[in-house]
Amino acid sequence: MEIKSIGVIHSPYKEVGDAPRQGHLSEETFEIEIYPDFLPGLKDIENSSHLVILYWGHQSRRDVLQTKTPFGPEVKGVFACRSPNRPNPVALCVVKLLKVEENRLLVSGLDALEGSPLVDIKPYSSQIDSVEENQES
Amino acid sequence: MEIKSIGVIHSPYKEVGDAPRQGHLSEETFEIEIYPDFLPGLKDIENSSHLVILYWGHQSRRDVLQTKTPFGPEVKGVFACRSPNRPNPVALCVVKLLKVEENRLLVSGLDALEGSPLVDIKPYSSQIDSVEENQES
Repeated sequence: MEIKSIGVIHSPYKEVGDAPRQGHLSEETFEIEIYPDFLPGLKDIENSSHLVILYWGHQSRRDVLQTKTPFGPEVKGVFACRSPNRPNPVALCVVKLLKVEENRLLVSGLDALEGSPLVDIKPYSSQIDSVEENQES
Repeated sequence: MEIKSIGVIHSPYKEVGDAPRQGHLSEETFEIEIYPDFLPGLKDIENSSHLVILYWGHQSRRDVLQTKTPFGPEVKGVFACRSPNRPNPVALCVVKLLKVEENRLLVSGLDALEGSPLVDIKPYSSQIDSVEENQES
């Protein structure tokens, strides 16, 4: 399964360690550049206040299955934590859409490093993407 | 950028048209099978009540950039709607984790078709993944 880069993320974070643990902890503005071939896919995107951004963690390790987290000494499986290192480093951020300028989206709330390949954009919907946690299960 | 299948989704939905528009509209139980090579990545996953599942829409079209939706006659960009058809058909569902049986996760709230390749599992966190929409922007 081959992912094609549909654009690129321009970020103030240049290297691993520059970015915050999660995008919602960032106060920076990011520019998401969509490549011209995919521009028709943006039609009506300005109607969304928030977007789900999927990007490729191009500086992530893909051979890590367990890791420590910033929250304690325990070793967790990568599928049980939000480590950027995982077999398929597809990172997910819910961002606020600030402005649309042709093939450029200005957003906040991202944690991507400069040059991260863009995988997908979806309109965020609290009805679809938000749940109450810790329900009895 | 090559995605490797880390598992496979077993679903009661066999063909396009069987699945509901969104996973949260489904009352079915799904079995997510993780391939043995990736089993260590599941350590501590039972601590999460909900998971973000990324899977590959193997029956999706990748050459579609604009489409109608079930909600009206307007044609929208695929990045402005939740169509399964998009350049990189990485689908996203927030599911409820019902049970962990070794390399099998039983979940509800999914919309995947039978045999969908599993791309990634992340623990859902309302702090990370949920926002208030329609804030002034």
